[in-house]
Amino acid sequence: MQSFRFSQQIQIRTGACTGGAMEKDGPLGAYLDAYDETGKFDGETWEESESRMLKKTIECAIEKAGKTKQEIDYLFCGDLLRQMTASSFGVKSLQIPVFGVYGACSTMGESLILASVLLEAGLAECVVAATSSHFATAEKEFRFPLSYGNQRPPCATWTVTGSGAAVLERGDGTNGIYVVAATPGKIVDYGITDKANMGACMAPAAVSTIATHLKDFGLSPDYYDKIVTGDLGAVGSEILLDLLKAEGYDISKQHMDCGMTIYDTKFQDVHSGGSGCGCAAVTLNGYILQNMQEGKWKRILFVPTGALLSTVSSNEGDSVPGIAHAVALEWKE
Amino acid sequence: MQSFRFSQQIQIRTGACTGGAMEKDGPLGAYLDAYDETGKFDGETWEESESRMLKKTIECAIEKAGKTKQEIDYLFCGDLLRQMTASSFGVKSLQIPVFGVYGACSTMGESLILASVLLEAGLAECVVAATSSHFATAEKEFRFPLSYGNQRPPCATWTVTGSGAAVLERGDGTNGIYVVAATPGKIVDYGITDKANMGACMAPAAVSTIATHLKDFGLSPDYYDKIVTGDLGAVGSEILLDLLKAEGYDISKQHMDCGMTIYDTKFQDVHSGGSGCGCAAVTLNGYILQNMQEGKWKRILFVPTGALLSTVSSNEGDSVPGIAHAVALEWKE
Repeated sequence: MQSFRFSQQIQIRTGACTGGAMEKDGPLGAYLDAYDETGKFDGETWEESESRMLKKTIECAIEKAGKTKQEIDYLFCGDLLRQMTASSFGVKSLQIPVFGVYGACSTMGESLILASVLLEAGLAECVVAATSSHFATAEKEFRFPLSYGNQRPPCATWTVTGSGAAVLERGDGTNGIYVVAATPGKIVDYGITDKANMGACMAPAAVSTIATHLKDFGLSPDYYDKIVTGDLGAVGSEILLDLLKAEGYDISKQHMDCGMTIYDTKFQDVHSGGSGCGCAAVTLNGYILQNMQEGKWKRILFVPTGALLSTVSSNEGDSVPGIAHAVALEWKE
Repeated sequence: MQSFRFSQQIQIRTGACTGGAMEKDGPLGAYLDAYDETGKFDGETWEESESRMLKKTIECAIEKAGKTKQEIDYLFCGDLLRQMTASSFGVKSLQIPVFGVYGACSTMGESLILASVLLEAGLAECVVAATSSHFATAEKEFRFPLSYGNQRPPCATWTVTGSGAAVLERGDGTNGIYVVAATPGKIVDYGITDKANMGACMAPAAVSTIATHLKDFGLSPDYYDKIVTGDLGAVGSEILLDLLKAEGYDISKQHMDCGMTIYDTKFQDVHSGGSGCGCAAVTLNGYILQNMQEGKWKRILFVPTGALLSTVSSNEGDSVPGIAHAVALEWKE
């Protein structure tokens, strides 16, 4: 079976998230623990800005959990930059043993799963799972530096300047949010080569992971209050719903896409929605966890999605494979 | 405690490794399960070549373990390329759920640790840990395309064209090689900015992880038959021994560096030795595992080392932080 259920009580003690001006102005602005309107976070380069944002987010999550960084046994994190330097430079001064993970924009899912596995194995007491993305670094990494002023097609998404971090530990199975199960994803490639249409590239991977999760546990979509994809945007979300219907699952009532939630796509000029590791990470660690805390939602299937491309693979004419990792979260009374 | 000990019997069922002409001609050539003198593995681009080499290695390891790919529950892998496309494109057709991991050249250590943790938690039956590097893709990614013919200083190392994969499952605690403990690394940064001198950048991280491992378990270096670093090369190895002596540990008798082992540094023009994820991966999954099988070594501390830089971080004047993950392997009768 591709999925597994945790037998221990793996609790998300708290989450924290940060962002820039666009994220502060968006519908989830009130959920940010910190933000910087300039997106610079006092960094001298955009890469340093992303590193500083990630570090701030992790420190904020640790503080909200009432912990010190010495109490964090291990840290799982990753980002979109080549060789994941946003993470390496961001977390090095924290001096917590670190596992670098990469799942493109699905990284928050991967880091949550692996942090939970470490707790399930009883090899740690307290673990942080985190990720980040930054509009300015991502444009430079995947497209062009901002000063080129290049244009984007309507199906393109806007990389979120944001970071999310969750503090996980063993709980007593009551009064909190628990990671109860996971479905690590397979890589799915429908042969799409349009790197401006990430939603279409990633939707088939989300379909595979969600359908597998529901089948593995014999669930119907209404078991969950929300089935949350990462950053499919308007185009990818439509494909997701269509393809899942063909598989026999209608999730149109439960579906929510972080990329469509973090921005107001009518009034903010983001084209097809938000994207980037930070998109799902901010939405989860701010909006979703708080709604669960407040009793609005009890069961969430969190399915961030990643597009596994690089500028080199794109320039060589390769397709854009996708991956999606599912994490089942439950509020326990 | 930064280290942990596994309570379950996590067995490395088998390992496989592949390489190119330099690796075949080197001292460990006889241990390669497959090789391609051209380094192309029938790929049309160097990136595709690396992907095909990685896939071949994983398939070879699975076959040697007497398994089918359907019996592999999860796969941990990563490489040096931006956004880890060598891994994504290499493993996508295997259709095994995949966790992308990044620790630069320490990746074989990270993938081994996380695969073992998943088995320790009882969430999988059989897991593969793998990684790869390729001279031609790494030169292009970090320095210049091969056709530029750029020169390298004597302290530079030669990126191994090679891949290693290990198949892990629960064993009965006898007659095999077991993963018994691990020390995940912290990021260590001594402020060195010379990206041609990776050994010096990574040595302090290896010192930190090895000293912590020995302290955590109250061991002296002679507990191990070999303490194996990844790719410090001639320059980094000297720094390692000096710094560890200052910490009170003399590992000069036990120390072996994969970068100094995989090539004949006298007769092969590799300057300071071999490097890259493939360096430690090939040495472990070929030479080391076979020597353990044959009873020559009983206890190995495998400590691959990674330099967490990118061309962007280097060009922006950043230092090169290092990381090293330690995995303790034991032959059990």
